[in-house]
Amino acid sequence: MRRPFLVNFRGLTERKALLSLKFSTSSAMAKSKFEYVRNFELDDTCLRNCYIVVRLDGRNFHKFSEQHNFVKPNDNRALGLMSRSARSVMEELEDITIAYGQSDEFSFVFKRSTAWFKRRASKLMTHVTSQFSTSFVYYWKEYFGEQALLYPPSFDGRVVLYPSNRNIKDYLSWRQADCHINNLYNTTFWTLVQKGGLTTTQAEERLSRTQAADKNEILFSEFNINYNNESPLHKKGTTLIWEKVNETTTKRINQPDEGETEIHVTRTRKKVTVHSCDMIGDQFWKEHPDILESGEC
Amino acid sequence: MRRPFLVNFRGLTERKALLSLKFSTSSAMAKSKFEYVRNFELDDTCLRNCYIVVRLDGRNFHKFSEQHNFVKPNDNRALGLMSRSARSVMEELEDITIAYGQSDEFSFVFKRSTAWFKRRASKLMTHVTSQFSTSFVYYWKEYFGEQALLYPPSFDGRVVLYPSNRNIKDYLSWRQADCHINNLYNTTFWTLVQKGGLTTTQAEERLSRTQAADKNEILFSEFNINYNNESPLHKKGTTLIWEKVNETTTKRINQPDEGETEIHVTRTRKKVTVHSCDMIGDQFWKEHPDILESGEC
Amino acid sequence: MRRPFLVNFRGLTERKALLSLKFSTSSAMAKSKFEYVRNFELDDTCLRNCYIVVRLDGRNFHKFSEQHNFVKPNDNRALGLMSRSARSVMEELEDITIAYGQSDEFSFVFKRSTAWFKRRASKLMTHVTSQFSTSFVYYWKEYFGEQALLYPPSFDGRVVLYPSNRNIKDYLSWRQADCHINNLYNTTFWTLVQKGGLTTTQAEERLSRTQAADKNEILFSEFNINYNNESPLHKKGTTLIWEKVNETTTKRINQPDEGETEIHVTRTRKKVTVHSCDMIGDQFWKEHPDILESGEC
Amino acid sequence: MRRPFLVNFRGLTERKALLSLKFSTSSAMAKSKFEYVRNFELDDTCLRNCYIVVRLDGRNFHKFSEQHNFVKPNDNRALGLMSRSARSVMEELEDITIAYGQSDEFSFVFKRSTAWFKRRASKLMTHVTSQFSTSFVYYWKEYFGEQALLYPPSFDGRVVLYPSNRNIKDYLSWRQADCHINNLYNTTFWTLVQKGGLTTTQAEERLSRTQAADKNEILFSEFNINYNNESPLHKKGTTLIWEKVNETTTKRINQPDEGETEIHVTRTRKKVTVHSCDMIGDQFWKEHPDILESGEC
Repeated sequence: MRRPFLVNFRGLTERKALLSLKFSTSSAMAKSKFEYVRNFELDDTCLRNCYIVVRLDGRNFHKFSEQHNFVKPNDNRALGLMSRSARSVMEELEDITIAYGQSDEFSFVFKRSTAWFKRRASKLMTHVTSQFSTSFVYYWKEYFGEQALLYPPSFDGRVVLYPSNRNIKDYLSWRQADCHINNLYNTTFWTLVQKGGLTTTQAEERLSRTQAADKNEILFSEFNINYNNESPLHKKGTTLIWEKVNETTTKRINQPDEGETEIHVTRTRKKVTVHSCDMIGDQFWKEHPDILESGEC
Repeated sequence: MRRPFLVNFRGLTERKALLSLKFSTSSAMAKSKFEYVRNFELDDTCLRNCYIVVRLDGRNFHKFSEQHNFVKPNDNRALGLMSRSARSVMEELEDITIAYGQSDEFSFVFKRSTAWFKRRASKLMTHVTSQFSTSFVYYWKEYFGEQALLYPPSFDGRVVLYPSNRNIKDYLSWRQADCHINNLYNTTFWTLVQKGGLTTTQAEERLSRTQAADKNEILFSEFNINYNNESPLHKKGTTLIWEKVNETTTKRINQPDEGETEIHVTRTRKKVTVHSCDMIGDQFWKEHPDILESGEC
Repeated sequence: MRRPFLVNFRGLTERKALLSLKFSTSSAMAKSKFEYVRNFELDDTCLRNCYIVVRLDGRNFHKFSEQHNFVKPNDNRALGLMSRSARSVMEELEDITIAYGQSDEFSFVFKRSTAWFKRRASKLMTHVTSQFSTSFVYYWKEYFGEQALLYPPSFDGRVVLYPSNRNIKDYLSWRQADCHINNLYNTTFWTLVQKGGLTTTQAEERLSRTQAADKNEILFSEFNINYNNESPLHKKGTTLIWEKVNETTTKRINQPDEGETEIHVTRTRKKVTVHSCDMIGDQFWKEHPDILESGEC
Repeated sequence: MRRPFLVNFRGLTERKALLSLKFSTSSAMAKSKFEYVRNFELDDTCLRNCYIVVRLDGRNFHKFSEQHNFVKPNDNRALGLMSRSARSVMEELEDITIAYGQSDEFSFVFKRSTAWFKRRASKLMTHVTSQFSTSFVYYWKEYFGEQALLYPPSFDGRVVLYPSNRNIKDYLSWRQADCHINNLYNTTFWTLVQKGGLTTTQAEERLSRTQAADKNEILFSEFNINYNNESPLHKKGTTLIWEKVNETTTKRINQPDEGETEIHVTRTRKKVTVHSCDMIGDQFWKEHPDILESGEC
């Protein structure tokens, strides 16, 4: 075995030892010579006292849903997987107080006073994106069973700040109104195709220039479908919040003088809970006053 | 079946029909009322004519590597999975001309003229993060076989801009010098522990205040290890670039007058290739002049 | 007189005419060739629904005040000029609802819904800075009379956003508390020097480690000065707001049957008014409810 | 004279003394309570290794030029004042290596390695804007003599970054090409009005759809004006750079044995020099190699 180049000190002439010394410090020196590039990173701290929203969108999910035979207009396996992945994000990043998802998008709201990752936009959005992305693949089998995931999909993310409680409520209302409009359209569209025998082009033509009432009417009078009875999950999307949940466990204990006794222990802990409910009106916010911080304006 | 609320027009009194009309437009109206929140999204376009680097780092990977029994000091399965995930990113986002990884980090360099996602920082970093993250879980089994992934891991990302060819080369040199320093340390540290019988605390103590030459010497004189002969993958990390590759396929054709003939077809196509080589010196850059755009300063 | 190079068409050979044509379009072509540099300008729009504060600070005003023999501890001419310049800014940029100044600094608060300059930070801060700067020189003579301005001074500016009414009130309170602390210190310091015969070094030494009460006590017991009776301008700084002011003008009219008549016309118009009052307590905000927009959180 | 409220310690009951103590610390406490608002200021550091351009534009200068009877198409007093103000900026902010002005705009280029104000965009642009603005009013009389400045004008500013030498040269070429196009238009327009007797509307109509050669031809064939002989100041604008200038001073010395002697002392110092020359071609840059830093791409 050969000695490593320029590393041995003992028995070397002075000059070689010096060279060796030079080499020995050179890797650290080299690194320090390049380290100036660190300073090119720019600060992207989010303005304080604003709600921080990270919204994810599936990339090319139209194609993805076709390749994976998603049920039209709504695939409950996919919606369940999205919801499961969102829960994984919330459990990892505690300062998210509410998340809302519909279709292939999910929004996560950090509380206005959060100091996670020093409020750095890039850290917040990439962590949310990454945790959601790995969870989507990790939990795929729980929702799609034997149907294979054909390739790793991708989501993009963005950060938007909202300074007031009104603004953040309006943001969530905006996404939920979008969910409603899309679902009414998609439900009618796919009913026309699947039950009405129209081609997708014909269905598209039929629905152009119709309004909400027209679509309701088509569903009701032609297909006997009352849209109001459709699944809340599809009409309202998925809302995740933290709630205190009582958990009761039962233990059996053998006590010397009493024999076996059953003891019920109830503990309260915070848990992510899943809802499909209206967030546009006031009721939801009154029932969950902890989601938004008391405005201090 | 009950008629849906306020949706049927025919047979309704005029007042109800008006109410219905009101309802029919309200969802679109509601959405437009909230849509102002769109304008809170701020522009984060990257300065033009700069290299855009997206660097990913594993979150809590120290713990992750212990929970998944990573081999010390380097786990080739993990390094292979990182490299595979990086290739997946490069194949999805073509304007990445070079990627470099070591340990639990990976850097992706977009060419300075890229117009992907209109150079929006958030889109670029989240897409890279997401594609890498889903690939890491998706390809896990290819590298870890039956050893299960215990939970979905997470990576964070950031964007840094470099205005000149010198800067981007120095950035990559910085990461590679870091790889070298860490690997020399880790190799010596784990040799002292695994072969020398030291505790981790003793090994840490032994290595404090040593320089590169000292560590080389410990390896050589005490353990007969020539660091120079260590694996390039561990010493240099992983570099991914696009290269033109000749692919020859052989076809057998039956021609009437000649009988069966073998035909060789050679096609050139671009492919992501994986290297463990020095990027600090000039040679690499001379051999691959297409990675950096000809400086126009 | 010679004909201009390459401009005349008539009588030229074809080649020259072509050359000329080439030249004739070349300036526009040249410009369009370079115009790509426009796209390097990055967007710096301020987040919506936030108060936008532009704060100016005098550059090297310590030296400036000495060179222009400012009266210590407060020069009313300088404070008047600062206030006059701030008024000039408010009159030019109407969406500023309140401005506050003390010493060589001035803060301007744009209302949270302002759309001036499309909320672009650079436009807002440079316009405020420029208008203030030109006014400072322009109105110098009104306040300093024959004492010459020795050179053009300079102010720097910055933009800070505040999402809530509480935040913007706290910002102004912060500046006013700073004014109070500095003025109490300066008043005591210069009294010790001017009336007490101390050197500036001795005065500094004397005041180190004293608190507000100690300084009040020095002024009162040693110099018979009750700090509470000091000028509000010095203790509270200068606040500029918009107020409705009644202006009555008198006209004389000759009417055929009534002879000359005096008519009083009262008109209400908005005007910048100057105050030295407390903004830390609630009273000021109750008296001027229009300064802050009704919080919609 | 009344004692100040709550300030005297001696002779007070303990309770009052405590109150007093409370008061004495309250101003500092109040300030510290509000000081959190500091943290709302966001970082706006400019990317390193890029040229930083600050461009100023006059606000409403069309109206300003009419109110101050500017000579059409070019007022040399105004151009001289702009240039004088730009010099004032360069002398105050040394890292500006070149400035270029035309019409009511001026651009200042900071060297790519500048560390002035820690490269903070807001500081750089407001200081340039302020120094220019105060100088414009301060030096007005030197250029306009007895003609009064009617009100304080205003300039806006912006920051743009350029990563390469090519980019910054193209930026300056863009502004100079703009100068050329505007000046040719304005020269022809005002010649048609002032010498040709056209109304401004007629002149505008006449020039619509003409190209550079057409305008040259109008000037030459109808008015005997060779545009090439027009003032370089008007055709090329104003370029300010730093140059080494030899300054020779003469001293007379009486030496005992030689009698009175004249001594010439030549000193080299850097000085802002003013040029009206082409920056689009290479010659200017070859003659002044120090303006741009040697590209390290």
